[in-house]
Amino acid sequence: MTKTVLVVHAHPDRRSLTHQLATTAKHSLAELGHRVLETDLYAERWKAVFDADDFLAPVDPERLSFISESGHAFATGTQTPDVAAEQAKLLAADAVIFQFPLWWFGFPAVLKGWVDRVFAFGFAYGYRGAGNTYRYGDGALAGKRAMLSVTAGGPAEDFGPRGINGPLEHVLFPITHGTLFFPGMDVLPTFAVYGSGHLDEAGVVAAKRALAGRVAGLFTDAPIPYRRQNTSDYPDRHSLAPEVAPGVTGIPAHIAAR
Amino acid sequence: MTKTVLVVHAHPDRRSLTHQLATTAKHSLAELGHRVLETDLYAERWKAVFDADDFLAPVDPERLSFISESGHAFATGTQTPDVAAEQAKLLAADAVIFQFPLWWFGFPAVLKGWVDRVFAFGFAYGYRGAGNTYRYGDGALAGKRAMLSVTAGGPAEDFGPRGINGPLEHVLFPITHGTLFFPGMDVLPTFAVYGSGHLDEAGVVAAKRALAGRVAGLFTDAPIPYRRQNTSDYPDRHSLAPEVAPGVTGIPAHIAAR
Repeated sequence: MTKTVLVVHAHPDRRSLTHQLATTAKHSLAELGHRVLETDLYAERWKAVFDADDFLAPVDPERLSFISESGHAFATGTQTPDVAAEQAKLLAADAVIFQFPLWWFGFPAVLKGWVDRVFAFGFAYGYRGAGNTYRYGDGALAGKRAMLSVTAGGPAEDFGPRGINGPLEHVLFPITHGTLFFPGMDVLPTFAVYGSGHLDEAGVVAAKRALAGRVAGLFTDAPIPYRRQNTSDYPDRHSLAPEVAPGVTGIPAHIAAR
Repeated sequence: MTKTVLVVHAHPDRRSLTHQLATTAKHSLAELGHRVLETDLYAERWKAVFDADDFLAPVDPERLSFISESGHAFATGTQTPDVAAEQAKLLAADAVIFQFPLWWFGFPAVLKGWVDRVFAFGFAYGYRGAGNTYRYGDGALAGKRAMLSVTAGGPAEDFGPRGINGPLEHVLFPITHGTLFFPGMDVLPTFAVYGSGHLDEAGVVAAKRALAGRVAGLFTDAPIPYRRQNTSDYPDRHSLAPEVAPGVTGIPAHIAAR
């Protein structure tokens, strides 16, 4: 069945590995018969900094509360057109692929600014004006899928279970869990290309082939089994029930055994 | 003894809690006899997006490799003046305090863009042209201290050991460990104000008092005991030695028992 997939990517050079991999993703999706939407943040000169200019009809022009202004602008259609367009793409998409270089173990600022601005109150948090009722597996983006596709300069071993950087999936937890699963998306394990600064031609070919394989599994691979808020796992919506992963703390406690 | 402390903060509204806490930090430092440097990212209209405009005399105007251009610009004094000024402040500072609202479990984009642009190759990574020889406790900023001071909309329990967001210090690990400890800084436990959207006047007073207390301990409190790369903990500079925290994986493995 034809799906719609949004590819968001963040590198200014069209010959970069990021662009090459974004192109691989787009071509693979098209070959699979899917419809592709695209956000090329550098080409679009995306405004990264969330500020008063984001609110075209502010509730309080004297005092900038991001939560109240974001909620008001979203509810009244007074967001900026670039933000509204990205939200429409997200709502149209069945899945989103993010292709970016890992900078300081996270998003490049332009991609963080896409989240800061697009993930409005009432849309990605505070859904239905119900505080935190809908989050972590439940929300406006529930039923959609997401996958991070990153290039990292360092070697894979630095991101291993006992690697010095911390495990890749734990370092990315604020994004995969805190940003994408939060408004309801099912997040696939991250696709990573390591040693990205030193790839030879064969390495690039192998990376593209591996990504194409992951794109082929976008709607069938098992997502990271993050626990959903609105289950008995979190009876008070704040903390894990004592009988869930007893004695386990930190990030692993929020991932169910498969 | 008089120290120099840089306060970096990120909120556009001068009446925001972020600004109020930054002011508390600055006043507390001055009262302690310290010299205060400041970077008010929104007031300075900091350029968040790292791009070709960052390199005034590029090695290769046809192909943008951030690592090689960043290293070249840093080495040849062809960085932009705003980046060079921030690096000079960092080198002058004995400690840095970052005051910001926690947006999607990380830095606002403008602050991420400060890191992306200021933490140049040859300065914050690739120090002395020696690859990863100097990192994680060793590097250009070794001997300096850092502290995150964050405001979070959610309640403290959501960030507890089994809280649904993940423990605050684990969620911030890409910043405290991956960004600040990486070039050598000793990072103090994060100061956090929870429920920041609903504080009454007494709550604001209490938050300011608590922050002043943490500022008073800036040079005496124990930092997070992240393990240093260039010790027997990481014999190959990539992974923990088997006898260090045996059987422990993930973020906790990189924190020594006190």
